[in-house]
Amino acid sequence: MTDQITLYSYWRSSAAYRVRIGLNLKGLRYEIQPVHLLRDGGEQHTPAFRKTNPQGLVPVLEHGNRQLRQSLAILEYLDETWPDRPLLPATARARQRARAIAQAIACDVHPLNNLRVLKYFEHEWHVPQPERDTWVKHWINEGFAAIEEMLGGHLSTGQYCEGEAPTIADCCLVPQVYNARRFGVDIAAYPTIARIEQACLALAAFDLARPERQPDRPE
Amino acid sequence: MTDQITLYSYWRSSAAYRVRIGLNLKGLRYEIQPVHLLRDGGEQHTPAFRKTNPQGLVPVLEHGNRQLRQSLAILEYLDETWPDRPLLPATARARQRARAIAQAIACDVHPLNNLRVLKYFEHEWHVPQPERDTWVKHWINEGFAAIEEMLGGHLSTGQYCEGEAPTIADCCLVPQVYNARRFGVDIAAYPTIARIEQACLALAAFDLARPERQPDRPE
Repeated sequence: MTDQITLYSYWRSSAAYRVRIGLNLKGLRYEIQPVHLLRDGGEQHTPAFRKTNPQGLVPVLEHGNRQLRQSLAILEYLDETWPDRPLLPATARARQRARAIAQAIACDVHPLNNLRVLKYFEHEWHVPQPERDTWVKHWINEGFAAIEEMLGGHLSTGQYCEGEAPTIADCCLVPQVYNARRFGVDIAAYPTIARIEQACLALAAFDLARPERQPDRPE
Repeated sequence: MTDQITLYSYWRSSAAYRVRIGLNLKGLRYEIQPVHLLRDGGEQHTPAFRKTNPQGLVPVLEHGNRQLRQSLAILEYLDETWPDRPLLPATARARQRARAIAQAIACDVHPLNNLRVLKYFEHEWHVPQPERDTWVKHWINEGFAAIEEMLGGHLSTGQYCEGEAPTIADCCLVPQVYNARRFGVDIAAYPTIARIEQACLALAAFDLARPERQPDRPE
């Protein structure tokens, strides 16, 4: 297919960051359509964007006339549609492990620390900022401790989370480490995670997907 | 493979419920190894179980000597290992949609309402029960409103979330509806979700996976 690819993205959204990495790893050309998650109460809540995604979340990937939602489901779609430079390993066992690491982040860490959750605490429960930050760090540390154990002691951990090529797991790990740093989590406590992040960011596909390299980053 | 299959499960865990449905849809024989999430502070936190899953979460699926974590990654593994009676649709487009619906639940609803989160609110922030219940219902209603829109208006919604056979999306939807009822969410407000739940529960694979049919349910 040569259909146009457009990614609805926000520079700091770690779910959008995952998909940017995936698109870059595949070597696909795409346009960024920025959705500013903070301006005017959040552009993701406009009626126009709600048509694109009733969940009011980024990312959304448009491929031709298809509107695709949910970052991990988008990465799977990229892999099925463009099989070269796979985002999933070769065996069912290794794929299961890569997906499980991805989901340990995408299901058990990131959703708890998302913007909409922190806004709920602020506006509904008036939780002070320091407690909100403690909450964020708690879930990152709990998740990273488990992931470090899953990575550090496992024979199939290689230069990347699963083997010697980046997978869907790395697409999730690197944005989560970015988030962790924002909140002052000590990444050195997770040596395997830290090592894999460095290996990933040495690749152009990851480097070009960084928040600070996005067209919608603030000056 | 004829290796033994064991599911570490808790009757009321909706993530374990998803995997029970998947195993039943595949017609696979498996043993349930109950992990009581409440007794003695939670059996998922014992050193023995932490070796099985450093995240301290159910489900875990043991297949022979493999220990598989994360419910959606386990369902994908089942589908790859036993391709008959697929849990994923036939085309990349339909698979993307089924996975996105599954993830709208597994990433954006369920993690916010999980036991460990509610415990944090109770023990760290002393949030009273009514506010905790409001929180739970808020995220279920927000998620279901979006999913209802994704299902109700879409041509490829059939008897089930995607087409005329149950998929990974239904494996996630039915347990989430069970959770929603526990917290008093009005399911009638989501007519497509309610219709699909009924269609699913009419199938033995779903019926036998229900919490109240599990060996570890209370008397």
